[in-house]
Amino acid sequence: MAKANAFYAQSGGVTAVINATAAGVIETARQHKDRIGKVYAGRNGIIGALREELIDTSKESARAIAGLRHTPSGAFGSCRYKLKSLKENAREYERLIDVFRAHNIRYFFYNGGGDSQDTAHKVSQLGEQMDYPITCIGIPKTVDNDLPLTDCSPGFGSVAKYVAISTREAALDVASMCESSTKVFILEVMGRHAGWIAAASALASDGPEGPPHLILFPEVPFDTDAVMARVEQTVQKAGYCVIVVSEGARYADGRFLAEAGTKDAFGHSQLGGVAPTLAGMIKDRLGYKYHWAVADYLQRAARHIASATDVKQAYAVGQAAVRFALAGRNAVMPIIERRSDKPYRWRIGEAPLAKVANVEKELPRSYISRDGFGITPKARRYLAPLIVGEDYPPYKGGMPQYVSLRKQLVPKKLPAFEI
Amino acid sequence: MAKANAFYAQSGGVTAVINATAAGVIETARQHKDRIGKVYAGRNGIIGALREELIDTSKESARAIAGLRHTPSGAFGSCRYKLKSLKENAREYERLIDVFRAHNIRYFFYNGGGDSQDTAHKVSQLGEQMDYPITCIGIPKTVDNDLPLTDCSPGFGSVAKYVAISTREAALDVASMCESSTKVFILEVMGRHAGWIAAASALASDGPEGPPHLILFPEVPFDTDAVMARVEQTVQKAGYCVIVVSEGARYADGRFLAEAGTKDAFGHSQLGGVAPTLAGMIKDRLGYKYHWAVADYLQRAARHIASATDVKQAYAVGQAAVRFALAGRNAVMPIIERRSDKPYRWRIGEAPLAKVANVEKELPRSYISRDGFGITPKARRYLAPLIVGEDYPPYKGGMPQYVSLRKQLVPKKLPAFEI
Repeated sequence: MAKANAFYAQSGGVTAVINATAAGVIETARQHKDRIGKVYAGRNGIIGALREELIDTSKESARAIAGLRHTPSGAFGSCRYKLKSLKENAREYERLIDVFRAHNIRYFFYNGGGDSQDTAHKVSQLGEQMDYPITCIGIPKTVDNDLPLTDCSPGFGSVAKYVAISTREAALDVASMCESSTKVFILEVMGRHAGWIAAASALASDGPEGPPHLILFPEVPFDTDAVMARVEQTVQKAGYCVIVVSEGARYADGRFLAEAGTKDAFGHSQLGGVAPTLAGMIKDRLGYKYHWAVADYLQRAARHIASATDVKQAYAVGQAAVRFALAGRNAVMPIIERRSDKPYRWRIGEAPLAKVANVEKELPRSYISRDGFGITPKARRYLAPLIVGEDYPPYKGGMPQYVSLRKQLVPKKLPAFEI
Repeated sequence: MAKANAFYAQSGGVTAVINATAAGVIETARQHKDRIGKVYAGRNGIIGALREELIDTSKESARAIAGLRHTPSGAFGSCRYKLKSLKENAREYERLIDVFRAHNIRYFFYNGGGDSQDTAHKVSQLGEQMDYPITCIGIPKTVDNDLPLTDCSPGFGSVAKYVAISTREAALDVASMCESSTKVFILEVMGRHAGWIAAASALASDGPEGPPHLILFPEVPFDTDAVMARVEQTVQKAGYCVIVVSEGARYADGRFLAEAGTKDAFGHSQLGGVAPTLAGMIKDRLGYKYHWAVADYLQRAARHIASATDVKQAYAVGQAAVRFALAGRNAVMPIIERRSDKPYRWRIGEAPLAKVANVEKELPRSYISRDGFGITPKARRYLAPLIVGEDYPPYKGGMPQYVSLRKQLVPKKLPAFEI
């Protein structure tokens, strides 16, 4: 393929390391200026492509791009915007191709979760239909760790580390207060459909005894009596009880323990507030003094305590995406392949987008302990290496020095487009 | 004074650095074995003294004691237990003296907030009355920063750093999502009566523009219309709005926002939680998509991101307490005296317990901006140096290596005592 430009976009909920992936894409592309002209980044993700709001990353210094490696969240802006099917909304796909054509974009790098891989796959199909050759590479990202085929998703290791450390720290706090004060501590973590993040809290202790003493997964129907009995037993035995609950915890009939009542752009219910709901039950049924925390965005933005393993993998999938594109691969996604648990060894592999799109990887039942409140040794072997290593950002005056970009837009060439 | 033993106890809500103070006390005492025999620590604070549950710290290795410097929460256990006045409860004070006498304890180090300094003061008075010479030294500790006379309280700098960093990180997250998703993010922080912790969130940005765009202090009556108007303006101008709210935020009539009694989707009342209450108002009045987080114990236990300045000061007050005792001082508390803001210089001073006990230091009005939603340059000058420096704990396998102690109890000599 002759020299052409590339388009990179961040999609969906951001992570502590998605910018490390951006650095991997941009730095690798800059090493191949004979093949890739400029890397344009979508301002606020794919919306930027539709609106022809393209950030010219060539205007950013090498230092700023390197700084993305230690800067959390989406430096170019992300979005929750799911393109409908080609049939329902050919207009938007055609607009993408129009914008790509206008700016000589022949490489499309889409950095996101399952929905985004679906979009990348559709764009590749449309390129063929519209006879516009475009190389589409999906790049995995999601704190939820629910992408299939890849051993883990960049973004997950850092949230896992944050949750494990926060659980350990809060557990020490409750342990020291429980004699005369707080007996139960509840930490609510993300994970709408899959309990991967909640499971990672088990790394707070070396063994199954905990803390955390109870983990409540979306995969295990919430049984009020069983949970209350276990909380009471634990307080009697250990003096206190630490519970980590997934935002997606639900009853056997499918109702979530807490539902904010709003839905996001993908039609998913916006959850939050399981922790206070559970705290209320414990107060009513057992009468214990409690505290609860909801980590929410703090957990996925916590670059200050990112996993070095996660940062490396996030960078590596960005780098691999460009290499795949240059090698003529299309409609594929770089994945993490695990070679061994201990010592932990991994390498980059490749998966076709057709197999990735819209498939969610649940926490396997073999990872959840028989009683449903903890993880198995198998899960621990899987999770443990993902949080290894610290990768501290530089600090000045006590604060991490996160970069901000110039984000200079490329002049528009097309008429405006309503989304 | 002839050689005698010392008693050390941790009191009230624990912090990321109170164990650094314990290390300061124990390591300094170990350097003076000619004067101080053993340091006994109260198991679960003063309750341990009343129950004659004394942890023999001489059974802990030098390495374990040094490890306290990087271990959060109260390693010996703390308590929420306030001794009543001497008149109302002479029995408990007399028990303390009995226990001290039985174990030849002539030094009393009490590590806590205002209530604890009051207790330490009373014990010193009682010692005189009962003709039992006991040297009482209070040691400051509180995340709330509300102790008088000391420029700051050990424990505060680390929670300030945690809150400032978390606010910056979450703000980057919302900024990257706001175009198509979350527009408002609310972080609830501690501070029932004083807005020091909330104020520290302003360090997330270099200037008054934020984020955080609004800080809601307990000191400023909550005015729903004014807050909603400001949130709306901010979203229109910046595209998103980050709010940091103190758990003690209240209406002009004194009612806490957290008591406002909102209900979740199932009609259960939402228990506690200013953040979800405020989120509900914003949804109802402005319709913005929101996220909220409640840091709760995570903020005060976050040793992984403690302020190096705070760790140093926490150690120094422990060290100074022992030196004061050896110098024959009594009924005093070491304090932090600020010599200059920039460069930040401080030294240890001394305050009489009589002046410390039961006095709360509010956030001065001159630290709050005129509109009530931010801090002044004066406040920034005060706060900025307290979060400077990182003091990372050692890690293994991705997790901080916090020490746990043997906590071997000294054999009891007295009859049991009911508390």
